[in-house]
Amino acid sequence: MTGLLELHRERVQPGWVDYNNHLNDAYYMVIFSNATTTLMEHIGLGEKDRLAKGHSLFTLEVHLNYLREIKGGMETRVETQILGHDQKRLHVFHFLYAEDSPELRATNEQMLVNIDMSGPKSAPFLPEVLAKIEAIEAGQVGLPRPANAGRAIGLPRK
Amino acid sequence: MTGLLELHRERVQPGWVDYNNHLNDAYYMVIFSNATTTLMEHIGLGEKDRLAKGHSLFTLEVHLNYLREIKGGMETRVETQILGHDQKRLHVFHFLYAEDSPELRATNEQMLVNIDMSGPKSAPFLPEVLAKIEAIEAGQVGLPRPANAGRAIGLPRK
Repeated sequence: MTGLLELHRERVQPGWVDYNNHLNDAYYMVIFSNATTTLMEHIGLGEKDRLAKGHSLFTLEVHLNYLREIKGGMETRVETQILGHDQKRLHVFHFLYAEDSPELRATNEQMLVNIDMSGPKSAPFLPEVLAKIEAIEAGQVGLPRPANAGRAIGLPRK
Repeated sequence: MTGLLELHRERVQPGWVDYNNHLNDAYYMVIFSNATTTLMEHIGLGEKDRLAKGHSLFTLEVHLNYLREIKGGMETRVETQILGHDQKRLHVFHFLYAEDSPELRATNEQMLVNIDMSGPKSAPFLPEVLAKIEAIEAGQVGLPRPANAGRAIGLPRK
């Protein structure tokens, strides 16, 4: 088992923080989106691949949980788990940490769809991309499902 | 009934688009986050109120659905529905449109918590803020619940 992917690191930029020098809620999503871009490169859907193969991923839906603050200038790191896929969809889960602390700062679940850019229209993954996805999944078989996966937002019913 | 709040308009900035001149997924969240800032001003939790009263809202959890592309330079507008509240939490739903088109581009559900900044710790809403929230809710009693509210992400089970 290879476990979670550790692909993405990124420093908090000055324009991303609020009056209190804390990372703004929206910019957690900027980091998670960049982590997906890094994942795409890892599975053969980077910029060069998009130009050569005409395929890319679009985001259908995301869910974020904000657990702890992140301060301006901190280096963040994202660990990534693939929760599943079908012919054209990829279900991804990111864990966000900062500096060398083991405390989880935020989580992000994403549903992505493979797109043939010549349409553009949704299309099955290219065989070499599918093989990469399945190889990652094979290395993550023993991982527990993240506690925040599949969450819905709501207040307790009265 | 006053219906949905139409509080926020914002133009897509050049740094927010991809190679294809489409709004990046993360920057939908920047617009939704700014819409919540506008809502906060509307209910008495703007920057001046924060300094005077020592209360603000933090984001606990968000969910976004991406429905249609938005191009660079477009003016976006957000319509807002309050789905509920308790003593210290506010459940908000934003609808995102662009230009004069009636086509829904994206939706965003948010769970926010009221914070007493002197802790900082979660605290009940100030009475004047609670009154504003309840006045908005009273004007939205007849609105249907948004189709994307309470969604969870997942692939169909095999």
